[in-house]
Amino acid sequence: MDEKTLTRLLEQVKGGKVSVDAAVGQLKDLPFAELGYATLDTHRSLRFGFPEVVLGEPKTVEQLLGIVATLVERKQTVLVTRLQPDKAEALLAAHPKGEYHAVARIFHVKQGKPKAGRVAVVTAGTSDIPVAEEAALTAQAMGATVTRVYDVGVAGIHRLLRRREEIQSAHAAVVVAGMEGALASAVGGLVGIPVVAVPTSVGYGANFGGVSALLAMVNSCASNVATMNIDNGFGGGFYAALISRTRGQR
Amino acid sequence: MDEKTLTRLLEQVKGGKVSVDAAVGQLKDLPFAELGYATLDTHRSLRFGFPEVVLGEPKTVEQLLGIVATLVERKQTVLVTRLQPDKAEALLAAHPKGEYHAVARIFHVKQGKPKAGRVAVVTAGTSDIPVAEEAALTAQAMGATVTRVYDVGVAGIHRLLRRREEIQSAHAAVVVAGMEGALASAVGGLVGIPVVAVPTSVGYGANFGGVSALLAMVNSCASNVATMNIDNGFGGGFYAALISRTRGQR
Amino acid sequence: MDEKTLTRLLEQVKGGKVSVDAAVGQLKDLPFAELGYATLDTHRSLRFGFPEVVLGEPKTVEQLLGIVATLVERKQTVLVTRLQPDKAEALLAAHPKGEYHAVARIFHVKQGKPKAGRVAVVTAGTSDIPVAEEAALTAQAMGATVTRVYDVGVAGIHRLLRRREEIQSAHAAVVVAGMEGALASAVGGLVGIPVVAVPTSVGYGANFGGVSALLAMVNSCASNVATMNIDNGFGGGFYAALISRTRGQR
Amino acid sequence: MDEKTLTRLLEQVKGGKVSVDAAVGQLKDLPFAELGYATLDTHRSLRFGFPEVVLGEPKTVEQLLGIVATLVERKQTVLVTRLQPDKAEALLAAHPKGEYHAVARIFHVKQGKPKAGRVAVVTAGTSDIPVAEEAALTAQAMGATVTRVYDVGVAGIHRLLRRREEIQSAHAAVVVAGMEGALASAVGGLVGIPVVAVPTSVGYGANFGGVSALLAMVNSCASNVATMNIDNGFGGGFYAALISRTRGQR
Amino acid sequence: MDEKTLTRLLEQVKGGKVSVDAAVGQLKDLPFAELGYATLDTHRSLRFGFPEVVLGEPKTVEQLLGIVATLVERKQTVLVTRLQPDKAEALLAAHPKGEYHAVARIFHVKQGKPKAGRVAVVTAGTSDIPVAEEAALTAQAMGATVTRVYDVGVAGIHRLLRRREEIQSAHAAVVVAGMEGALASAVGGLVGIPVVAVPTSVGYGANFGGVSALLAMVNSCASNVATMNIDNGFGGGFYAALISRTRGQR
Amino acid sequence: MDEKTLTRLLEQVKGGKVSVDAAVGQLKDLPFAELGYATLDTHRSLRFGFPEVVLGEPKTVEQLLGIVATLVERKQTVLVTRLQPDKAEALLAAHPKGEYHAVARIFHVKQGKPKAGRVAVVTAGTSDIPVAEEAALTAQAMGATVTRVYDVGVAGIHRLLRRREEIQSAHAAVVVAGMEGALASAVGGLVGIPVVAVPTSVGYGANFGGVSALLAMVNSCASNVATMNIDNGFGGGFYAALISRTRGQR
Amino acid sequence: MDEKTLTRLLEQVKGGKVSVDAAVGQLKDLPFAELGYATLDTHRSLRFGFPEVVLGEPKTVEQLLGIVATLVERKQTVLVTRLQPDKAEALLAAHPKGEYHAVARIFHVKQGKPKAGRVAVVTAGTSDIPVAEEAALTAQAMGATVTRVYDVGVAGIHRLLRRREEIQSAHAAVVVAGMEGALASAVGGLVGIPVVAVPTSVGYGANFGGVSALLAMVNSCASNVATMNIDNGFGGGFYAALISRTRGQR
Amino acid sequence: MDEKTLTRLLEQVKGGKVSVDAAVGQLKDLPFAELGYATLDTHRSLRFGFPEVVLGEPKTVEQLLGIVATLVERKQTVLVTRLQPDKAEALLAAHPKGEYHAVARIFHVKQGKPKAGRVAVVTAGTSDIPVAEEAALTAQAMGATVTRVYDVGVAGIHRLLRRREEIQSAHAAVVVAGMEGALASAVGGLVGIPVVAVPTSVGYGANFGGVSALLAMVNSCASNVATMNIDNGFGGGFYAALISRTRGQR
Repeated sequence: MDEKTLTRLLEQVKGGKVSVDAAVGQLKDLPFAELGYATLDTHRSLRFGFPEVVLGEPKTVEQLLGIVATLVERKQTVLVTRLQPDKAEALLAAHPKGEYHAVARIFHVKQGKPKAGRVAVVTAGTSDIPVAEEAALTAQAMGATVTRVYDVGVAGIHRLLRRREEIQSAHAAVVVAGMEGALASAVGGLVGIPVVAVPTSVGYGANFGGVSALLAMVNSCASNVATMNIDNGFGGGFYAALISRTRGQR
Repeated sequence: MDEKTLTRLLEQVKGGKVSVDAAVGQLKDLPFAELGYATLDTHRSLRFGFPEVVLGEPKTVEQLLGIVATLVERKQTVLVTRLQPDKAEALLAAHPKGEYHAVARIFHVKQGKPKAGRVAVVTAGTSDIPVAEEAALTAQAMGATVTRVYDVGVAGIHRLLRRREEIQSAHAAVVVAGMEGALASAVGGLVGIPVVAVPTSVGYGANFGGVSALLAMVNSCASNVATMNIDNGFGGGFYAALISRTRGQR
Repeated sequence: MDEKTLTRLLEQVKGGKVSVDAAVGQLKDLPFAELGYATLDTHRSLRFGFPEVVLGEPKTVEQLLGIVATLVERKQTVLVTRLQPDKAEALLAAHPKGEYHAVARIFHVKQGKPKAGRVAVVTAGTSDIPVAEEAALTAQAMGATVTRVYDVGVAGIHRLLRRREEIQSAHAAVVVAGMEGALASAVGGLVGIPVVAVPTSVGYGANFGGVSALLAMVNSCASNVATMNIDNGFGGGFYAALISRTRGQR
Repeated sequence: MDEKTLTRLLEQVKGGKVSVDAAVGQLKDLPFAELGYATLDTHRSLRFGFPEVVLGEPKTVEQLLGIVATLVERKQTVLVTRLQPDKAEALLAAHPKGEYHAVARIFHVKQGKPKAGRVAVVTAGTSDIPVAEEAALTAQAMGATVTRVYDVGVAGIHRLLRRREEIQSAHAAVVVAGMEGALASAVGGLVGIPVVAVPTSVGYGANFGGVSALLAMVNSCASNVATMNIDNGFGGGFYAALISRTRGQR
Repeated sequence: MDEKTLTRLLEQVKGGKVSVDAAVGQLKDLPFAELGYATLDTHRSLRFGFPEVVLGEPKTVEQLLGIVATLVERKQTVLVTRLQPDKAEALLAAHPKGEYHAVARIFHVKQGKPKAGRVAVVTAGTSDIPVAEEAALTAQAMGATVTRVYDVGVAGIHRLLRRREEIQSAHAAVVVAGMEGALASAVGGLVGIPVVAVPTSVGYGANFGGVSALLAMVNSCASNVATMNIDNGFGGGFYAALISRTRGQR
Repeated sequence: MDEKTLTRLLEQVKGGKVSVDAAVGQLKDLPFAELGYATLDTHRSLRFGFPEVVLGEPKTVEQLLGIVATLVERKQTVLVTRLQPDKAEALLAAHPKGEYHAVARIFHVKQGKPKAGRVAVVTAGTSDIPVAEEAALTAQAMGATVTRVYDVGVAGIHRLLRRREEIQSAHAAVVVAGMEGALASAVGGLVGIPVVAVPTSVGYGANFGGVSALLAMVNSCASNVATMNIDNGFGGGFYAALISRTRGQR
Repeated sequence: MDEKTLTRLLEQVKGGKVSVDAAVGQLKDLPFAELGYATLDTHRSLRFGFPEVVLGEPKTVEQLLGIVATLVERKQTVLVTRLQPDKAEALLAAHPKGEYHAVARIFHVKQGKPKAGRVAVVTAGTSDIPVAEEAALTAQAMGATVTRVYDVGVAGIHRLLRRREEIQSAHAAVVVAGMEGALASAVGGLVGIPVVAVPTSVGYGANFGGVSALLAMVNSCASNVATMNIDNGFGGGFYAALISRTRGQR
Repeated sequence: MDEKTLTRLLEQVKGGKVSVDAAVGQLKDLPFAELGYATLDTHRSLRFGFPEVVLGEPKTVEQLLGIVATLVERKQTVLVTRLQPDKAEALLAAHPKGEYHAVARIFHVKQGKPKAGRVAVVTAGTSDIPVAEEAALTAQAMGATVTRVYDVGVAGIHRLLRRREEIQSAHAAVVVAGMEGALASAVGGLVGIPVVAVPTSVGYGANFGGVSALLAMVNSCASNVATMNIDNGFGGGFYAALISRTRGQR
């Protein structure tokens, strides 16, 4: 609540147009829905213009059904990430207009038509595709148009060079790579747009579950690279779609 | 070089308008300036519309004078970061229209008028200010209008809440914090814009030179937070300014 | 045994009221019960006024039955933590007046009425609830009155602010959070009571099984935050209840 | 501001006793003093009943003089920690009634008479004394009576046993130890009061600047041990003093 | 494409011998085969004279069948590493002339007769044999003659000394060892040929999944030791075979 | 082969008492038995007077049967450690005079009567017993008399003090402890004999699979503490038994 | 105080031969000397038969003078380790019969004639000599006869083999090595005596201040290797001398 | 000494042509020169055909003068690495035909004409040049012809592509890079020769003194990349030159 709104409200109280009780309610009542096990911030969508996102993995089916029902009721677009197939079935049964993407493990109930710009999603290898799809579907759910540029790792740099223009024409790029994570720097050096780097846990040995790629990305010599958590495809897609919005779209 | 340009060039070769030698030159000659110790990519500015950035710390005064002279000659805006004061004096002597910002340790020669949007730079404590100023001055050098919101760490969350609207009205926010790095998540939760988190090495004990803050930021529960390297104020400012550009400005 | 008691005992020996053998026994015989596989310190309850706590996870059913029987016989309150459901069944069968809390994985046999003050247990997300319940039930077993404030992480700071007074009115707060662990600092900044931070292993990627949250908490910029081991809900509840006791209650 | 105060304020607005502008001011104006480089939370002392603490190390003399002057003016007790001797001289010159403790590197201006209980400060070796003194002086500044029990590490456990009762009679104990940090568990096992463990960076080799002690303390098998950051003597003293306050003293 | 070839092509365009379209095609068309989920670089074999290597573990049977079919069709030698037995069966059914080596988990379709020199594969213990066999079979697939020297760890140094000449007579040695990884330095000191060290995850406790051996090898006091990733038998065999080739063989 | 033996041999060659071939054989033939997959050093027992030890976990039943048969045939005492129960059955079937200790996971075939001194094995908790039994049985297999002092962790230091003399009367003590590993320092401070510290992976959270205990032990402030690998009960028992041998027994 | 002594004392109290006060004094008075900043355990020497050891580095000259004077007065042999040259001068001035060894940084005041056996000190390189000398001089101060075997690292294994018998003839060996620390395993495999491994911080890059060597030693495949802290030459020498003592010598 | 030589020697002993003493001497006398502080392996050069390399940094001037004099006398080529300028002066004074390269910190005395092949040394940035020069000069000292390709990091991939053929025409490439170390993979993907990757400690923040680059290189997705220690330019040059030798040259 900004100063102007606050002043207006107080003037209404003073003028008797708004009762003290109503004003107290308005001032203290923040837009949360309490479910007992969760405090849903249902105005978040208004604030960000984006769907409420629910991490599916650690929640029970009952918790998920409760949360999704509340959000759907309030006309919120819903995105459940890292959702196991068996829980997805229960959600699909309850919400037939929802969709489940098995590779990306995302459940999505679309409500309204969000708008965003163009996002490129780039991967080093085929093993990075599940995380990349999580990013791509998230960005699409937020209204972005997504270009997929897969399997163009630096050990065969020509494959990447051939597709440079496709990436450059996006408003932001998500680069998904494991092992040595070199692709983020290579893409960052080739294009003039913000690059959102997502390290993956793909690999073995001294990759430490993705830490080798995370460190490489954080240490990138290209200045237009910022980094998300390991395997955080959702975050990468969300962040890139957020960047891609035009002023008017916000 | 895209396909259309390539086709046109080859037709000119075929038609004799361009000699084979000239075409070879055009095809193989990429726009680099060789100084012996450095290969400057002077077209980067054209490609990205941004200044060439030089890391001042590890270079000798001679190398810096050579690099800056080359860039100035080619009408490039120059930004030398992490520049020690004594080297700054030598550069100022050679380039009187340059400026040196001691707190941020940045040397800047302005050429042209880059355009970008609004960037907020937020810090947790007063000790984070040098890194924050590096971010702020970089963003300004790239044409952004910068709002500084300093010393609003989460241990006194009211200080941050009071300034929420200032941050929200920017196109992107740089959040600079050391120790537990909690400010990035708090800002990310308050505003609907992309947040670029810059961990600092400020602190002691188990902060491991900034790693505690880096991990906190990478693990942020707010989806609109992406992370730069520890103490990388330049990167934070660059990335936020890049985001802040409107479509038309690109 | 303090100096006064020692003097008294020796005077009794001198005066013939206590035999040498009895005195030797008293001086060398410390209050342990030997079960072969465990040396139970049954006077601990007297010393601390708190139940004997048994870590259930690595012990066999036979060991647990033996230990609990010994404690119950000596009128000790028993708290078995991290107890698997199948072992709980065996304990419940043998001790029908005991209780098993499945979410917190705690088995509890109440004997006597311990007294402690008010403790608030606060969580960042719904996934932190099992650890939080372990803390809450432990504090209750020690006689504390517990207020639960769940799902108020910093990415939606208003949810926390709304419940500030409830937390402040406790004698100590346990803050349970995973990922970036920022909630401990935020609560620490909001209230003037000791905060016991419990990092959880909730999260993925570069959270390293809770290390990201542990580091954030240890590096907290709020001075009223001390930290327990990762997922150590029992320790958090125990420590907060210990603080909450008034002088007279000790 | 709680609901009751808010209601009262709004009723005064309604009744014309308070102007809209004044109410806006009251509602939006939080008690901060802005110095340009720092946002002082001067009501913190009221809220917590404790002095405002300033980390001296990274600040310039000018910043420190400004901050201390503001606090002194507002009748706040001031505690500047990790203060280098040369800066201390400047502060002493400006505030003759302040005191500087060289071993603990603390500058203290006493205003008012805070009250707290009894705190024991225990060290493993003589090298841990500087951190222990920081803890002891902080607790004293907060009104606690401090008992020092130094050089009683576990490699000569009899030294500790001899002083058990002194420690037990305190309301909280700060245990300061480097290397293997075993003293925290030993003290925790001996006494029934909350133990605040402070690992120190004392040692060499695989102690990793105090990490070996930090890990030992976090993994303590004694439930009444909570841990502060490495070398954080101030935090240890503050936390123990906070615990030591009786209800009435709060 | 080097300058000479480029010049020739452009002269052919100029002289009308090659059409503009054909030249565009030649210049932009790089030798990739697109399978949708993978971008195969089928000229790699020509460039390197070595088989295309496919990491089997994370790929589905369908993806593997598609990739292998494409490579076989183009007369490429195929090496699928880290292949699970069930997937191997599917590949063997489709390509009866392929071979599967269960210990090394390698599937191999031989086409052509690659040539390389002599490679020695040395292991510290019997538990290192699976990784060593991966190395040995890879080197053989590349045409090398392989000598196996197994179970000659430094805790019984005489076993190694007895076989020194066999190792010395190779062009390169692969040393496979877990735990303390000392064998690489010992072999490096005994022979005057390049040693490729492969740490294994064999061991327990503070070996951190092979990190202890990796660090030992990277820190080797013998200058003729270079290191591969943990358990990367394939890489070790590939690298050693690459070294072993004579000029004429390349 | 020392100089004296060498001289004698050469003189025999010179005098024709030993043929050149026989001498070559003697000089080059070291006492190894080759099984294909393992190079057994069967003279080790002669050299050290101790059984040959085989790590059972990673080996197949076939390999184990082969190795044990070879050793038994050569009258070697055999100790197979970390042996899974199902493999133990196969060994017991083949060698009925062998014994399998399930808690310690050790298979033992006794041949001859090794002699060593007195060893104390001390544990912090009941969960450390499996590793402690591995140590105790190994020391017994080497001829040592073992005193077990279990469950005497520092959180109840009186339990340890009561048994000090038992430990002191041994020639060496093995201290087995997880979590904070403080027991090694406490025992080291109490007794004047060499202490062999064995960290265990018992615990959770920030114990990092035993690293917290390992670091505590390596950083012990007691000088008579040396450390083995995490969970290496065998090594602890072996080393302590080796120390316990009197001069005459060697 | 064992049971027999205790019984005797109590009988003397009973019989009036010892007053209650004297008995209390005897029972509660442990043999410590309090210096204010240090609690000296002067009976340690009696218990262990070894000198009291003082870590010189972190102590002030005044503290060192006080501690050494107290020990000398009580006829204790003194060993001050890690002593800087300037402090050594002050100690030498006060105790002319003391000696300072500059390479090992040890100050030694000999009182009495301790007895121990034979110790070998082995180093990998010349850079390990300072730590090795600390070990050698400590062992000598404890009465051991020391054989030095320097610069015999595994990269030239023949240098070590040539000196095998010298090492084998000792009662214990200290192996000092940095970088990959392979020497400990090699020596352990060659000789049948206990090996005390001391990792050094010698090296650079991924040696992490000695951690690479520490890990290698802890993971040694030779069972007769136990490990001390990085650069802990004193500990290595102390431990080996302790092992080397015969029964009669204790 | 191989079997043939041994047989011949024994036959000479038998035939009386070689005395027993002489044979003992020959058999036991390995080719070492003892300087007291160092055991020089002067036959190493014969065995490997390469200079003896001395690490200059930790040695005193006296040690260096002694070692170099011994080597020069025996006609060995000498290479002293990591040599500080002041020590270099002393060596130059004693050996006027030696050379000191200040950037690479190498002192070199050439004796004889070693032969090797072609080596390319590639760097990511100008800050990597000192390590690269250490590699280049070492390779040259070993007889290799070196091509320098500097400042071609992946953030400007075109700079690298332009020089691909120069690198490919070498027998081995040394790639020197800090920060994210991506250049090793990029070069590895472009050329079919063995790549020796040398991570550098250049950078800041989460590069951990070169660990980020080391991990990236060890995890390289290109199979023709093996890794040396951080900043080990000497090792990189040595290893590449070793590879570059043709069969005939060995």
